Amino acid sequence: MTIPAPAGYTYDSAELAPSPLSLGELAQLQNSLLWSPDDAAALRRAGEILVPQTDRILDVWYGFVGAHPHLVATFAGADGQPDPAYLAAVRARFGQWIADVCTREYDANWLAYQDEIARRHHTSGKNRTDGVDSPATHIPLRHLIAFIVPITVTIREFLAATGAPATEVDVMYHAWFKAITLSATLWARPYSPDLW
Amino acid sequence: MTIPAPAGYTYDSAELAPSPLSLGELAQLQNSLLWSPDDAAALRRAGEILVPQTDRILDVWYGFVGAHPHLVATFAGADGQPDPAYLAAVRARFGQWIADVCTREYDANWLAYQDEIARRHHTSGKNRTDGVDSPATHIPLRHLIAFIVPITVTIREFLAATGAPATEVDVMYHAWFKAITLSATLWARPYSPDLW
Repeated sequence: MTIPAPAGYTYDSAELAPSPLSLGELAQLQNSLLWSPDDAAALRRAGEILVPQTDRILDVWYGFVGAHPHLVATFAGADGQPDPAYLAAVRARFGQWIADVCTREYDANWLAYQDEIARRHHTSGKNRTDGVDSPATHIPLRHLIAFIVPITVTIREFLAATGAPATEVDVMYHAWFKAITLSATLWARPYSPDLW
Repeated sequence: MTIPAPAGYTYDSAELAPSPLSLGELAQLQNSLLWSPDDAAALRRAGEILVPQTDRILDVWYGFVGAHPHLVATFAGADGQPDPAYLAAVRARFGQWIADVCTREYDANWLAYQDEIARRHHTSGKNRTDGVDSPATHIPLRHLIAFIVPITVTIREFLAATGAPATEVDVMYHAWFKAITLSATLWARPYSPDLW
């Protein structure tokens, strides 16, 4: 069975500009967050556990966002109410993103798509992909960074769900933590391109 | 024995401007990173374990920074070489900061001092407190965010050092993780004040 790519998912698209961050600079950034090749391997194993649980993970994350007005405001349509089509379109890409975090090589194509995700949080690109006329023109940087915590800590129970030993869950959990922090870091660039 | 406050430590100073972030907005931000009153209590217990180990913790962190030229560059003096006096002055405040993370109320005075720490990372204030003529005019935002990982994960062994049960270490560890992410989030504000 082939699952069609989510609408607006432009990974590997030739239309994406190359990232201004070189692979050497990426490696330096990875050093700043204790990245090692073992983390990439642990993410591969995590992906085998997490991808089949994608919908349940998204239920947790969307439940969390839905429970907080200052977060669900992100998904407001022109009338100020949450836009179901917008929520659904983002959810499909969010699910794909879980797989990408775990399975993709962190190479130039990956960097270019992180830049695109960054724009979709920032005033330069939010709402454009899904054609939404939202009063929320950007994700505030503070919530983008703060989200490192919920996106990290909620994943642990899913990593443990298939009965992996606690030490192995911990290794995968910390690889995920590093990957999420790396992602949020890359997504912060358009907010402060000169001092990033 | 009274230990004198580190040079440049201006917590509670009447000269600090009030933070533009209200306590209500702080609570909202804390919601975004799953903060609960249990975390504050866990940090108090963590402080009892960590503060006596402050020097050993700083040895680990400074060792990490010293091992990476792109990180130690932060501490360059006018000649481009690491400035021992600057390193020592920051280290003293960094040690005090460990205690503050664990023991302070996260109130208006705490917020005002987080803003001051933020300025000391940003072009608006770096090098000023210690009178350093450094070619490093700011901490790049990407390394500030990335540092959530090493400052979090290196603390776990110190939390476990006094033999607390693993479940209790985990509770304190996650409270610390949230506090570090909250701190880095607040320190990011001057990098993007309009979209923060």
